Amino acid sequence: MATLAGLRAWAATQYGYLQRSLGAQLPAVFCSQSSGGSARSEARPTSTRQRDGIRTIVLSDPKKRNALSLRMLKSLQTDILQEAESKDLRVIVISAEGPVFSSGHDLKELTEEHGRDYHTEVFQTCSEVMMLIRNHPVPVIAMVNGLATAAGCQLVASCDIAVASDKSSFATPGVNIGLFCSTPGVALGRAVPRKVALEMLFTGEPISAQEAMLHGLVSKVVPEEQLEEETMKIAKKIASLSRPVVSLGKAAFYKQLSQDLRTAYSLTSQVMVDNLALQDGQEGINAFIQKRKPTWSH
Amino acid sequence: MATLAGLRAWAATQYGYLQRSLGAQLPAVFCSQSSGGSARSEARPTSTRQRDGIRTIVLSDPKKRNALSLRMLKSLQTDILQEAESKDLRVIVISAEGPVFSSGHDLKELTEEHGRDYHTEVFQTCSEVMMLIRNHPVPVIAMVNGLATAAGCQLVASCDIAVASDKSSFATPGVNIGLFCSTPGVALGRAVPRKVALEMLFTGEPISAQEAMLHGLVSKVVPEEQLEEETMKIAKKIASLSRPVVSLGKAAFYKQLSQDLRTAYSLTSQVMVDNLALQDGQEGINAFIQKRKPTWSH
Amino acid sequence: MATLAGLRAWAATQYGYLQRSLGAQLPAVFCSQSSGGSARSEARPTSTRQRDGIRTIVLSDPKKRNALSLRMLKSLQTDILQEAESKDLRVIVISAEGPVFSSGHDLKELTEEHGRDYHTEVFQTCSEVMMLIRNHPVPVIAMVNGLATAAGCQLVASCDIAVASDKSSFATPGVNIGLFCSTPGVALGRAVPRKVALEMLFTGEPISAQEAMLHGLVSKVVPEEQLEEETMKIAKKIASLSRPVVSLGKAAFYKQLSQDLRTAYSLTSQVMVDNLALQDGQEGINAFIQKRKPTWSH
Repeated sequence: MATLAGLRAWAATQYGYLQRSLGAQLPAVFCSQSSGGSARSEARPTSTRQRDGIRTIVLSDPKKRNALSLRMLKSLQTDILQEAESKDLRVIVISAEGPVFSSGHDLKELTEEHGRDYHTEVFQTCSEVMMLIRNHPVPVIAMVNGLATAAGCQLVASCDIAVASDKSSFATPGVNIGLFCSTPGVALGRAVPRKVALEMLFTGEPISAQEAMLHGLVSKVVPEEQLEEETMKIAKKIASLSRPVVSLGKAAFYKQLSQDLRTAYSLTSQVMVDNLALQDGQEGINAFIQKRKPTWSH
Repeated sequence: MATLAGLRAWAATQYGYLQRSLGAQLPAVFCSQSSGGSARSEARPTSTRQRDGIRTIVLSDPKKRNALSLRMLKSLQTDILQEAESKDLRVIVISAEGPVFSSGHDLKELTEEHGRDYHTEVFQTCSEVMMLIRNHPVPVIAMVNGLATAAGCQLVASCDIAVASDKSSFATPGVNIGLFCSTPGVALGRAVPRKVALEMLFTGEPISAQEAMLHGLVSKVVPEEQLEEETMKIAKKIASLSRPVVSLGKAAFYKQLSQDLRTAYSLTSQVMVDNLALQDGQEGINAFIQKRKPTWSH
Repeated sequence: MATLAGLRAWAATQYGYLQRSLGAQLPAVFCSQSSGGSARSEARPTSTRQRDGIRTIVLSDPKKRNALSLRMLKSLQTDILQEAESKDLRVIVISAEGPVFSSGHDLKELTEEHGRDYHTEVFQTCSEVMMLIRNHPVPVIAMVNGLATAAGCQLVASCDIAVASDKSSFATPGVNIGLFCSTPGVALGRAVPRKVALEMLFTGEPISAQEAMLHGLVSKVVPEEQLEEETMKIAKKIASLSRPVVSLGKAAFYKQLSQDLRTAYSLTSQVMVDNLALQDGQEGINAFIQKRKPTWSH
């Protein structure tokens, strides 16, 4: 189980930094939230509910087009990190209130008056949220119904899975205001072909949900009235699976992706053997052979 | 010709290991096979025939849904490696008998009773077969007519080219039985956009042949009745070409793919010069200028 | 501004080499050209015009199917490099006269008589032109109306953006003449899924403009009669933007693309902060907040 332990250590390093950096503020924030049901705090720009293993985080500042202000980013970060290791959490869905999924950074925070240090904090926090999604032990799904621009587009690109309604659209329009979408380009450039990314980045023009699916920015497009149903179908499916198996698989997938082929196969072959040695690994194989439904360890 | 020699050495290292590891068993296996015509051994789970430079390897265990048991993997490995350096071999086509291309690993081999060492051998052998396809001196084409799941989907993703009938579908359903498709994810994650790969890996749901083409998992989709014709058209075209040129090009393509741009161009510029210095390189150029058909060296 | 200075230094290193290597020949070449308007030299295989920040470079040797002879490559290189740092240049469009965008290398230059050193110069120069496009401070758009093959296809794949008419097609047919398209494979393999690239490289068969868009080789396909209008719409949009912002963003995008996620975010977060500190960065933000059109520094 050396690899399994190693992967866990690796994944822990990835988001451990964030947990440490949130440090003092976590308890206070967590106190103001119920850990399940349909908790909602008016004071925070995000709201969460969790049921049957599915946590839904909603960007809830439609008047500001769900701008990713520093406050919004930290709220989102807290909601994603909360009880990340709990067995009751199997999948996270990020959605938004109103016609705009998210318009990206709050430009009022990026004026000269706020100064270089503040700007640095904004972009670092944003980057940490994006990396947290990838390094989180459970899958994170974006459910998009509307316009996602700049860091809002980056948020969609950073999720593991993205489902969009057919009226959604995506853009990186920073060039229009003299601020090239360089950080969104990190996520976008890893999700779509580079010519598509560059045309979006250089012109700022939006692409449709269909184009986004064609190019890999979202994995599914459905009519608006089916968006929640289709997204929840995926979320429920994931919530029905073995959490340790999904978690192991997610960490291994991202880790091997940038490795050379031989190293990637060496890692994942070991992960397969470790996975089989998990209680849920053997339960799954035995259930299949015995033609019955598996019972997971949680 | 330093680069050409270097590439040959590099490619040889990649599959040389396999040749050595097969070692003692090769002669016996090869004795039981005719080297051409439509040879077929009832005792082996694969069958091969070779004609006009095209070797067709057929997964021939439809009752077991062409599961990639250790025996099947080794049989496939032997068939791919056999006379790999022969001038009579120009291209390999991998197909399957029955409605399932391959259902992936044989789960009966993955129970606790078989033990960790056996599991390790299964996944290592599977990984070696996948890498062998990439490192083989001739192109390998998957001809898919039906369902390809888990390591079966990995096999399709690992071939250089894949042609599928429109009734084919592709899935990585390991999560359903508590065994995340981590090794298939290596090949899948290098073939399709990561959101598509992750939705497949996290939900286990199949994608259609059309979706597979849209996302790059297969390069062509045709009606079932045209599958063999269309695949053979590609195979015959490749078989009509200069083998050393194709072989040099294949090795160079994969080698440069992970390099930075300057290194990649430095390598391939040298490969172009070496290619021109090959007998077939000059013959091809001269034939073109003289407006005649080239005559290759083999 | 350490990162900004660093990126500029990095970008300068990338094409500085070319500027140095062109050295002595530049002045003479530039003397024969007017720097703006619709200058045209019959003696050169390319022609350029520049207006309102948009430089159009036309491959103008339709009788030779716009073959990328060494002369053509050097002419193209000169036209791209000319006044690269001028504020009057905002975007470059590369197009071609006649029904063939470019047929790739001039095969008459690749015969044995020309010798190994000449061949080496041809491929090195070609690679330098391709890298120059990526490392150039302004975006480069390919406007394709017809067939683009071999190094011609590589040229399209190497541009930042590519718009094609629906009658265009793309191929890497080197295998037909015993010269595998290894250098085109560098650009092609980074633009489209690898199965698509390999089928093109192994068979030499063309793909249509629609297929090219589907797979990311071009970013847009339009009817022939709208090709110029649509391409110019993109070019004009880019020309209306802040040049230093676009330039910074282009360099950052390519640099981060091959980095691991944490390094990429570290780089680009810094780039965002530097971007904000640019005169045009603050002007853009302020104009947005004040609901007025920004006035860029040039």
